[in-house]
Amino acid sequence: MTQLTLINGQPQDRVDSHDRGLTYGHGVFETLLLTRGRLQFLDWHLERLLDGCSRLLIPTDALAETLQRELSGLPHHQDAVVKVMVTAGTGGRGYALPRPVRPGRIVQLSPLPSWPDAPAEGGIRARWCHTRLARQPSLAGIKHLNRLEQVLARAEWQDTSVREGILLDTAGYVVEGTMSNLFWVQGNTIHTPALDACGVAGILRRWVLSVAGSVGLELRVDSYYPQVLEDADEVFVCNSLAGLWPVVQLGSRTYVPGPVTRTLQALLNKEYDPC
Amino acid sequence: MTQLTLINGQPQDRVDSHDRGLTYGHGVFETLLLTRGRLQFLDWHLERLLDGCSRLLIPTDALAETLQRELSGLPHHQDAVVKVMVTAGTGGRGYALPRPVRPGRIVQLSPLPSWPDAPAEGGIRARWCHTRLARQPSLAGIKHLNRLEQVLARAEWQDTSVREGILLDTAGYVVEGTMSNLFWVQGNTIHTPALDACGVAGILRRWVLSVAGSVGLELRVDSYYPQVLEDADEVFVCNSLAGLWPVVQLGSRTYVPGPVTRTLQALLNKEYDPC
Repeated sequence: MTQLTLINGQPQDRVDSHDRGLTYGHGVFETLLLTRGRLQFLDWHLERLLDGCSRLLIPTDALAETLQRELSGLPHHQDAVVKVMVTAGTGGRGYALPRPVRPGRIVQLSPLPSWPDAPAEGGIRARWCHTRLARQPSLAGIKHLNRLEQVLARAEWQDTSVREGILLDTAGYVVEGTMSNLFWVQGNTIHTPALDACGVAGILRRWVLSVAGSVGLELRVDSYYPQVLEDADEVFVCNSLAGLWPVVQLGSRTYVPGPVTRTLQALLNKEYDPC
Repeated sequence: MTQLTLINGQPQDRVDSHDRGLTYGHGVFETLLLTRGRLQFLDWHLERLLDGCSRLLIPTDALAETLQRELSGLPHHQDAVVKVMVTAGTGGRGYALPRPVRPGRIVQLSPLPSWPDAPAEGGIRARWCHTRLARQPSLAGIKHLNRLEQVLARAEWQDTSVREGILLDTAGYVVEGTMSNLFWVQGNTIHTPALDACGVAGILRRWVLSVAGSVGLELRVDSYYPQVLEDADEVFVCNSLAGLWPVVQLGSRTYVPGPVTRTLQALLNKEYDPC
């Protein structure tokens, strides 16, 4: 399939080198799954994007409508990844905001990664990262363009059989994977870390939180030390592209993909294709 | 004067929208002062740039030589700002590093900001920022492209008579200004915050540290709570473009530009123009 990039709605693939997305990482992004003819969870992605823009002082007037128009013009017949970045555009004197801020939009269509080893079925091996996430409530939850911590964490291993690294924050709490959110099940309760100090509040995380009750699970969102994973019955990670991946190994502990993970995977599959 | 941008040595001003400098802030930058026909502190800027690249896993083979060649080709007859960015280039699957990493170089020449109110002479008003810097030793000291904290801090005020905001970290220690390093003098000792948890280790900071002894000052680099500024005799901020600016007001406390600041300013002026 062809790659395609739109900059402010125009088919081109280069951005101004003075764009604050480049110079300061002043922007946000979303990674959407295009499958079965539609952009999955589009509304939630746009909602999070707008929320991130507001927190980073990027105006959102007509932004959702404009992006929706641009996204609907993309070819929808083939599965793909659609990445959307919104930056604070060019201008401003140093760190001071331009007045007015004129946001920049970047939409990139690219092929869906293929996972021939079917990690959603067989599960993945994961590791604990040495890199810690700094605790910064001002940026917690936002999918912003300042991602050096994830780059450094992901660079810790080359072993391709390890598919994800799990990060603690500088206070020692478990937060998330480099590219995913983390859940685990113990008894009848599903757990995931609170993201009030750092981490990205993922769209699939939101979905799991929204359906947990309907499949009879108690839900707990809290601060956890990594030791709690020792006693988990099931562990999985999730993101918009991968869906839910059971974790079969984390550090020295092994797990078996369990019934809760399988139920949620089946439910997600229905969600993707409601017809 | 004309603005001029070189991307990988070529006169153009747009970068690939897949560049990791944009997508993750995976890169570093330097802001150099071009005055009196030369790029001031060029060697130190390049040294810090290379060090930052190494810490961010960006290879530096021949980078300094290439940048030096590109910089020497810039017009040198007029005072200007030269910003250099080096990114991890394009490629890689998600956060994983491209193999190999092919660094991207961006050199931007632009007019020197003018300060008609002569802040170097009269001093500046500064404020305490509410935004706190997260403590992240993995990134401390590096002038990297993840600058959202500075953007948020700088957006806290619009009063143009306030020229700088001073930041604490999340543990409550004083760190630096949004665009400058901070020094203060008490008795015969000059103080500046340690930057082992966060902050940018500025070139002018390095210069002040290097000359403090020669002007008869004791030097102390440590962790400080903001209260210590109450007892300071002199306070100044510094960066490569501004040089040294005396602080005449910080929050409710006022100061008078003092003899140490004046001595260092005179010394810096000689440094710029050794002939």
